[in-house]
Amino acid sequence: MTATQVEDSDFLRACRGEPVSVTPVWFMRQAGRSLPEYRALREGMPMLEACRDPEMVCEITLQPVRRHGVDAAVLYSDIVVPLAAAGVDVDIVPGTGPVVAEPIRDMSDVDKIRDLAPEDVPYITEAVRLLRAELGATPLIGFAGAPFTLASYLVEGGPSRDYAKTKALMRGAPDVWHALCGRLASITAAFLSVQIDAGVNAVQLFDSWAGALSLADYQLFAGPHSAAVLDAVSGRGVPRIHFGVGTGHLLRAISDVGADVVGVDWRTPLSQAATIVDGKALQGNLDPATLMAPSDVLAHEVRRVLADGAGAAGHVFNLGHGVLPATDADAITRTAEYVHKFSAR
Amino acid sequence: MTATQVEDSDFLRACRGEPVSVTPVWFMRQAGRSLPEYRALREGMPMLEACRDPEMVCEITLQPVRRHGVDAAVLYSDIVVPLAAAGVDVDIVPGTGPVVAEPIRDMSDVDKIRDLAPEDVPYITEAVRLLRAELGATPLIGFAGAPFTLASYLVEGGPSRDYAKTKALMRGAPDVWHALCGRLASITAAFLSVQIDAGVNAVQLFDSWAGALSLADYQLFAGPHSAAVLDAVSGRGVPRIHFGVGTGHLLRAISDVGADVVGVDWRTPLSQAATIVDGKALQGNLDPATLMAPSDVLAHEVRRVLADGAGAAGHVFNLGHGVLPATDADAITRTAEYVHKFSAR
Repeated sequence: MTATQVEDSDFLRACRGEPVSVTPVWFMRQAGRSLPEYRALREGMPMLEACRDPEMVCEITLQPVRRHGVDAAVLYSDIVVPLAAAGVDVDIVPGTGPVVAEPIRDMSDVDKIRDLAPEDVPYITEAVRLLRAELGATPLIGFAGAPFTLASYLVEGGPSRDYAKTKALMRGAPDVWHALCGRLASITAAFLSVQIDAGVNAVQLFDSWAGALSLADYQLFAGPHSAAVLDAVSGRGVPRIHFGVGTGHLLRAISDVGADVVGVDWRTPLSQAATIVDGKALQGNLDPATLMAPSDVLAHEVRRVLADGAGAAGHVFNLGHGVLPATDADAITRTAEYVHKFSAR
Repeated sequence: MTATQVEDSDFLRACRGEPVSVTPVWFMRQAGRSLPEYRALREGMPMLEACRDPEMVCEITLQPVRRHGVDAAVLYSDIVVPLAAAGVDVDIVPGTGPVVAEPIRDMSDVDKIRDLAPEDVPYITEAVRLLRAELGATPLIGFAGAPFTLASYLVEGGPSRDYAKTKALMRGAPDVWHALCGRLASITAAFLSVQIDAGVNAVQLFDSWAGALSLADYQLFAGPHSAAVLDAVSGRGVPRIHFGVGTGHLLRAISDVGADVVGVDWRTPLSQAATIVDGKALQGNLDPATLMAPSDVLAHEVRRVLADGAGAAGHVFNLGHGVLPATDADAITRTAEYVHKFSAR
């Protein structure tokens, strides 16, 4: 039966550190702008609107599975979807990213953010159900943004290079900071629970920008809130993947907050990461820019990453960050083929 | 006499790993937008024009020395100044950064970039002479961008988050890449030599964006060209400081290309960096965003960095990256005071 087939998939086996027939592969941002069929479908439709349309989410999520033959689907959504659903005035501006109308400054701003109930995101439940019916033996990964990364958007008002306002708030008003992140942890845990209840087979918590913090600051201001999220979804039978970019100096801490699988960016060799995370499975870590290199270079780099990950407890092949929007779709397909071909047992 | 006093300054002593009376401090981007007197002076004058006016360069370089009582001046310039002087059509666009009119695509583009002669930058020679006459016992730091970072602007056409074109060129056309970086190394070495000939007391090579590379890629594509630059200015009696942001995974490599002092960003504790660079002096590494925190937090963090750097062969206090433009000038002054007060022997 299908549920057993999904559980027995190479992707979930690798997450659990069990033997696999080939190294499973998926790509962060595999559903998105790199695909012509995605661009055609999204034409004229705002991002958040697309994320709230279950049929649209289902189709966009399936596109890369059909085209690339990847080993897992990842729910098409955005990390600000649960924030918008909880009443935050946030939009995704093309070419910029999330833009928040009223950035968080004090406790009264935090108090305005309410918790998330399953009824706030019926389209997520519906999309996951549609997808599970379509995906057969292919696992579906749910996801959410971690409190620190979400908070950075809410405090900065949008994307940032230096997180100056975020850091000023955390250091200058730690009570406001922790109240904000506590609220975000609660929203994120609820958002992931909805996805798990509806049938996703794994979840990934993205703390995309945690790498901007020193280890000491991460442990003080970010880690405990990620731990709360991951703890809230433990024991649900779905592997919890945790990832941030530029987190080489935080890998052990990111592992310790409760990840089952640790995502690694391209800067840290998987062989080195394996010694740091101590018996957990790894996900990564081809430099996304490599997909723009000639095929022989790409093939060489895929082999290198596979060899480098061979010593990990389990290895889910992925990029070290999301697919770059300008990436040629064929290069993504080719990468998936290389992973399967070069890792066949 | 003054030359002896400069050589005997705490800054140069720390660079050489000799005992100091207080830990010397300066700030990357100390001359610039954080100072009201700078904003007044620059009003209506394009950046590159200011960089070519010796009197202006002298005044802007002196402003933070007067105001903050820092232990070293750093020549006001920009990493693209030598490129513009060598005929590259580049401008600095406010709010964006360097913008290159015709990005590098192939060998014919590389061939158009000529070498730099001292006559191309008479304003640098003149500015350094003016400054040495004004600075008394305060050392003057010259600087330049490293080949990888310069090349990233020339290939991307401007600032980048992912360096996709840069990496595509280095992997797809390594002959073009190495020709480009070879040319840039030659320009950079010439630019630093002009500054040393004119009287700077130390030089800092900024490979600001090298942290985007894995160690393997750094060693293949960036390191050798930085080594060529640093080798060209060795034996000139000026310490060579080398810095990049997010380079925790590259610190040993960055040290090994020929740095006398290794700059460390805020992500890597100085105590850890000291074990990596093996006997070299360190520069860093307060998180620039800390200057926006309340004074007690700032004081605590300054003490922490001082304690953390105490085990290094020498410690030049600095930020872990440049002063953030929105920083209050008084917080910078306060930081310098804290460093001196807390480190007095």
